[in-house]
Amino acid sequence: MTAALGYAAEIAKAPLVPFSFERRATRPHDVRIEISYCGVCHSDLHQVRDEWGHGTFPMVPGHEIVGRVIEVGEQVTKFKAGDVAGVGCMVDSCRSCPACEEGLEQYCEKGFTGTYGAKSRIGDGITYGGYSNHIVVDEAFVLHVSDKLELAAVAPLLCAGITTYSPLRYWKIGPGQKVGIVGLGGLGHMAVKFAKAFGAHVVLFTTSAGKTDDARRLGAAEVVISKNRDEMKAHAKSFDFILDCVSAPHDINAYLALLKREGTLALLGVPDTPPMLQFQHLIYSRRQIGGSLIGGIAETQEMLDFCAEHGIVSDIELIAIDRINEAYERMLKSDVKYRFVIDIATLAA
Amino acid sequence: MTAALGYAAEIAKAPLVPFSFERRATRPHDVRIEISYCGVCHSDLHQVRDEWGHGTFPMVPGHEIVGRVIEVGEQVTKFKAGDVAGVGCMVDSCRSCPACEEGLEQYCEKGFTGTYGAKSRIGDGITYGGYSNHIVVDEAFVLHVSDKLELAAVAPLLCAGITTYSPLRYWKIGPGQKVGIVGLGGLGHMAVKFAKAFGAHVVLFTTSAGKTDDARRLGAAEVVISKNRDEMKAHAKSFDFILDCVSAPHDINAYLALLKREGTLALLGVPDTPPMLQFQHLIYSRRQIGGSLIGGIAETQEMLDFCAEHGIVSDIELIAIDRINEAYERMLKSDVKYRFVIDIATLAA
Repeated sequence: MTAALGYAAEIAKAPLVPFSFERRATRPHDVRIEISYCGVCHSDLHQVRDEWGHGTFPMVPGHEIVGRVIEVGEQVTKFKAGDVAGVGCMVDSCRSCPACEEGLEQYCEKGFTGTYGAKSRIGDGITYGGYSNHIVVDEAFVLHVSDKLELAAVAPLLCAGITTYSPLRYWKIGPGQKVGIVGLGGLGHMAVKFAKAFGAHVVLFTTSAGKTDDARRLGAAEVVISKNRDEMKAHAKSFDFILDCVSAPHDINAYLALLKREGTLALLGVPDTPPMLQFQHLIYSRRQIGGSLIGGIAETQEMLDFCAEHGIVSDIELIAIDRINEAYERMLKSDVKYRFVIDIATLAA
Repeated sequence: MTAALGYAAEIAKAPLVPFSFERRATRPHDVRIEISYCGVCHSDLHQVRDEWGHGTFPMVPGHEIVGRVIEVGEQVTKFKAGDVAGVGCMVDSCRSCPACEEGLEQYCEKGFTGTYGAKSRIGDGITYGGYSNHIVVDEAFVLHVSDKLELAAVAPLLCAGITTYSPLRYWKIGPGQKVGIVGLGGLGHMAVKFAKAFGAHVVLFTTSAGKTDDARRLGAAEVVISKNRDEMKAHAKSFDFILDCVSAPHDINAYLALLKREGTLALLGVPDTPPMLQFQHLIYSRRQIGGSLIGGIAETQEMLDFCAEHGIVSDIELIAIDRINEAYERMLKSDVKYRFVIDIATLAA
């Protein structure tokens, strides 16, 4: 075992404080990564506050991890010490169900092992995440990261990036398509960048008129203030695809009405209370609603390679780890453009 | 103009009574059909009672029409006097929008002309349906019907048939697939027959244990009593596709949970109150919900030809037209196996 240092919530709803723990010794297929940066996902906040239940504490959050490989197990073939590497939302899965065999570990039929707060498949421990100085992960769940990109801004690609990249690829977004992105937050701002990079005509929906200029800078051709009925109506039946990046309860029917016949609304976030669905929006135009969860390991690597090739990273605000509780409060007010990333160097004792 | 006799609701919610009216003279592309049989769709009841609003009265319902051609306009090429013909839910559409050009008149962007209660595109009149002794329809919206089949039992194919055939084709149902059909009524019993004919393993969901034997006779390999949680749970994550034929409010989330990853739930009916949608069922298994409305004219012809080839018709209860009000009351209690069809010969003065 190796001593590790991180920030943890010792019990549900507690503020995060410095926390000492141990990481397992490197096994034959393991890679040990010295963490440089870790993104702050909204789901970290939900889980620290145990809003989804089943949380295990102490909890060290963080699943948008980049750093450098400092040690590899004897059978590791994909990585060597010194490589820049990333870890996302998963550190393991059953590896034998149909989903895993198709490279869709996020839909593992036995449940993937989350990067933090999950029962490890190796030993009896609970996984601890990236708000910490190093992590040990089987190489099958470690990603190669190009050092051409600004590393701190790469971190959010491991969750916000793949979560938006994957549905845009699954629904085959490309040139000639009109694509809506709902919400300009951590997910939404990446979705705008990817949809634009794939060649779509991108329309950003937001409740905040103040985000208009930023949305255009990020790649949106048009911005619609979703509270404005006339603005919404002007886009009726015109979208091939809408990616809904909002987790707060909201009216999905208003977006369904903007889809063309056979268009799809894809959902990424789960609201606290289930919204109502007006079936007629589906029936009268043969539209569909789908959902998507992060992305598989192979697709995450594809996404990172795409980002390196096209110079795509997240827009971030870098923070010292002792500002994490304050960052959570600001996230609750959507006061971040567009992702907090923890500079793990600030963790040094 | 030609005198016609039918049954109509003179005002909203009124019982149906004998009604004399006029049909237009046959135009160059028109076909006049002497109606033999007309199916009784649940939507007739909704519209007669103006439960969807915008009803126009007097209303002569009926959009599951079969009969014989008795007169054709001079430019008619598809039909001649003596042909067996059918008319379904539509008698016209704009014919120039992308939907119409793709043969999807049911999604006409300007709105198709309903067989009854709709403003006609020819002249100022309101369309009158098939609870009547003859009808005049442009040949583009008239279907050929094989005389190999029992005509009375063909009538419901024009709405209940195509409404279930079309989604099963759109979502490419075939051998090797496990397909659920929710509800054994007018639509559901046709869906079971088609899904079986397409080679799927068919599971019928019903709230009535009394329908089990009938469901098996119609082609279901398994029957699940949807109120029984254990029975439902035994089918978790196992369906490729579920066709939901129920219009009454019900929990769609229970069916979403039975779909495999990437499976689809297709909705055909609009409940009075919009049900809640639990997004997690879509997100955690990349499932989809879709909807479908009747079918286009070309596909309706394809369906009728398929039925002739495979000996498929509706299970019906033939009634005299003066029993129509009683039939409506029985429909409200789901007391029909599985479609009432009016013998229009009983209308004779």
